[in-house]
Amino acid sequence: MVDMQTITTGTIDVSNSIDTPLEYTIGVVRTAARVAATEASPVRDLLAHARVEGMISLAGGLPSAEGFDITGMADAVSHAMVDARQTLQYGLTEGEPHLRQSLVQLMHERGLTASAEAILVTTGSQQAIDLVARLLVDPHDVVIVLRPSYLAAVSVFRLLTDRLIGVDSDEQGPDLAALEALIEAGHRPKAIYLVPDFANPTGLTMSAMRRREVLDWAVRHEVVIIEDDPYGQLRFAGQAQASLFAIAQDDPRARPWVIYISSLSKIVAPGLRLGWIVLPQALIRPAVVLKQAMDLHTATITQTAASHYLNSGRLASRLVWLREHYRERKEALSAALKSELGEALSFNDPHGGMFLWARLRPAVTGDFRAQDWLPLALREGVAFVPGGAFYDRLPDAFTLRLSFSSTRPEQMLVAAQRLRRALEQRPE
Amino acid sequence: MVDMQTITTGTIDVSNSIDTPLEYTIGVVRTAARVAATEASPVRDLLAHARVEGMISLAGGLPSAEGFDITGMADAVSHAMVDARQTLQYGLTEGEPHLRQSLVQLMHERGLTASAEAILVTTGSQQAIDLVARLLVDPHDVVIVLRPSYLAAVSVFRLLTDRLIGVDSDEQGPDLAALEALIEAGHRPKAIYLVPDFANPTGLTMSAMRRREVLDWAVRHEVVIIEDDPYGQLRFAGQAQASLFAIAQDDPRARPWVIYISSLSKIVAPGLRLGWIVLPQALIRPAVVLKQAMDLHTATITQTAASHYLNSGRLASRLVWLREHYRERKEALSAALKSELGEALSFNDPHGGMFLWARLRPAVTGDFRAQDWLPLALREGVAFVPGGAFYDRLPDAFTLRLSFSSTRPEQMLVAAQRLRRALEQRPE
Repeated sequence: MVDMQTITTGTIDVSNSIDTPLEYTIGVVRTAARVAATEASPVRDLLAHARVEGMISLAGGLPSAEGFDITGMADAVSHAMVDARQTLQYGLTEGEPHLRQSLVQLMHERGLTASAEAILVTTGSQQAIDLVARLLVDPHDVVIVLRPSYLAAVSVFRLLTDRLIGVDSDEQGPDLAALEALIEAGHRPKAIYLVPDFANPTGLTMSAMRRREVLDWAVRHEVVIIEDDPYGQLRFAGQAQASLFAIAQDDPRARPWVIYISSLSKIVAPGLRLGWIVLPQALIRPAVVLKQAMDLHTATITQTAASHYLNSGRLASRLVWLREHYRERKEALSAALKSELGEALSFNDPHGGMFLWARLRPAVTGDFRAQDWLPLALREGVAFVPGGAFYDRLPDAFTLRLSFSSTRPEQMLVAAQRLRRALEQRPE
Repeated sequence: MVDMQTITTGTIDVSNSIDTPLEYTIGVVRTAARVAATEASPVRDLLAHARVEGMISLAGGLPSAEGFDITGMADAVSHAMVDARQTLQYGLTEGEPHLRQSLVQLMHERGLTASAEAILVTTGSQQAIDLVARLLVDPHDVVIVLRPSYLAAVSVFRLLTDRLIGVDSDEQGPDLAALEALIEAGHRPKAIYLVPDFANPTGLTMSAMRRREVLDWAVRHEVVIIEDDPYGQLRFAGQAQASLFAIAQDDPRARPWVIYISSLSKIVAPGLRLGWIVLPQALIRPAVVLKQAMDLHTATITQTAASHYLNSGRLASRLVWLREHYRERKEALSAALKSELGEALSFNDPHGGMFLWARLRPAVTGDFRAQDWLPLALREGVAFVPGGAFYDRLPDAFTLRLSFSSTRPEQMLVAAQRLRRALEQRPE
């Protein structure tokens, strides 16, 4: 089924090409130069279109609302108000101690060992990425992201440095030769951002071998790996791979080089805005100081509710249900794409998470690009994200991201039919 | 009662003096240079001491827990779970529309006119300060803070620029001559950070005249005023002054130069982590993009609960109660200080907020400094914050901040007696 094109010929510089003016002015006000480097996420802008009545959206990265444990969360939230004077008062910057302890346990169940003292609770994993980036990245530092990559992480790095470098990846993970070539070219990257399990947007999972190779490369060249793991618990096929963090824990030399980030957004609820970072000992104090400047601490009520929920024991069976729920949806989407668009479209077979990555076959559809397909698709009542949005430069214009998380299985065939009808309207 | 020393002789450069190394390393990891500029807030570190059994803390800036409307908030929180699928899902970066509307109404009741579209909900006003600073401040920009100033704002600016300048203030507000002198010296400040009502740490309120003068200065020299107004609703004496934002709204030329920040932390509950920014039209879009990178959006459950609470109509009577509650506490602290330490200590008479600013009288206590008083006071069972902590350089070492918000009136005399006993133990 998979015939994804992978380009492994080298690295491509995706640094922001905007010439930063000495003074950047909006209206009459001089703003920071970094404002010139910001763009709103096209994915979020697309969501506006996806809200039309009857639209089937394969565009957004929303978790399935059916997956929310509403009974369990309502109970947890009302429990959080039992000790209201504490819940309503200022809390600790590091996070509520009971939640940090619950997160230790949650990680333990995934085979990850961390102490509560190494955990910093954040306002979603987006803040975790921003915090770690501010901890590490100076204005002209080289930071490596994959091509394609998670857009909101790219935005964070681009606010901090003008030297973001995109490295291609194959189905095993980042192209090692390209990573080595970077070093040989004289670059000294400060960090590499990776989502090893079920990445956004490709759904791809790094192989066990490539994980060890990339970690080895990072340790040799003193590059911090920012491992972002929001989807790891959502595996519905294949063999679990040890996280980069877990591999590094077994080797004292490797240990300082992996910073682990995760989130409750995809397994409990994104509206809580709860993520966390596991930091090497030496970085905890400066990270806490940065967090103080960023928002003092994360909301106490959401932390207390989440801790109560994690301790309730309800999550384990919920995760079993959720994995099956997403597997069914992925299967339904795959089958529908195959029957309706099997000639025109190739696509991969993710083992977990929320995304499937597809590519128009130019042999069949010529030079028709995903971004030209989208307006036709929206008119037919189906939304997706053209893959070009996830590349900074030299996008593969034939790719698209299809999210299967928030569409019911019985709707997938309708979605694929609409996609097919839209495709049939392309100009000859 | 007031004989505060005010130094109005000019400006003092409080830029961070740490020589930033080309590479800043913690353990084996190279971090960003900005990490060298971070210090944990000494106030927060002090809170650890204040948690000892029997300690009376005049140190922290915690709102009175008795002020929390627990019944109203419990109701609001459970209401937030009525539409749980929405509350648990991702929300809008700008903030929940119903909360933005509630904040328009809350501002309206204070005489401030803003449209919902101009409001950006933030994860506490700390994030608001961080966001506005990142929106405006480039690495070598001049930013003006007052001496003394709110520490967590100073931390934010110091993470972004090495040219923070402290300007002295008298009881009317910042020293205008010093502001003009800055311009004459060739500086081109990007922003000035002000807390016009009941400032932290001094409790001082800017006079109406000084507000107009500072706004006029800012417009003439194209300096953005970051007006932070967390305490404005807590006035218990004197005449309300129009905010800088309100004054600027009446003058199209002045309008772009004031960014207004406020918070629910001091009037509803800090554990919610809810603040907001009112931005000039042209800056809304870039601010939203920055917020996306910072934490995607603020927790939906706290926003929904807060909106329900604000709409419940309970806040108006709660505010009446809260002002009287704080007035009683301020009166009790003033009376106790006067009877126990009237000879040794001068202090001001704030018209609202949570803080009173005091100064040892060197004529009575010699060169004994507040930071030497503190360990003796902690042994006696009372905590405060030495004022030097709020200055970057050339601190007035005789000053101290006394928070009256979280100590019961009947405890104030005990606190003052402990302070006196501690003072009596000073070395001759």
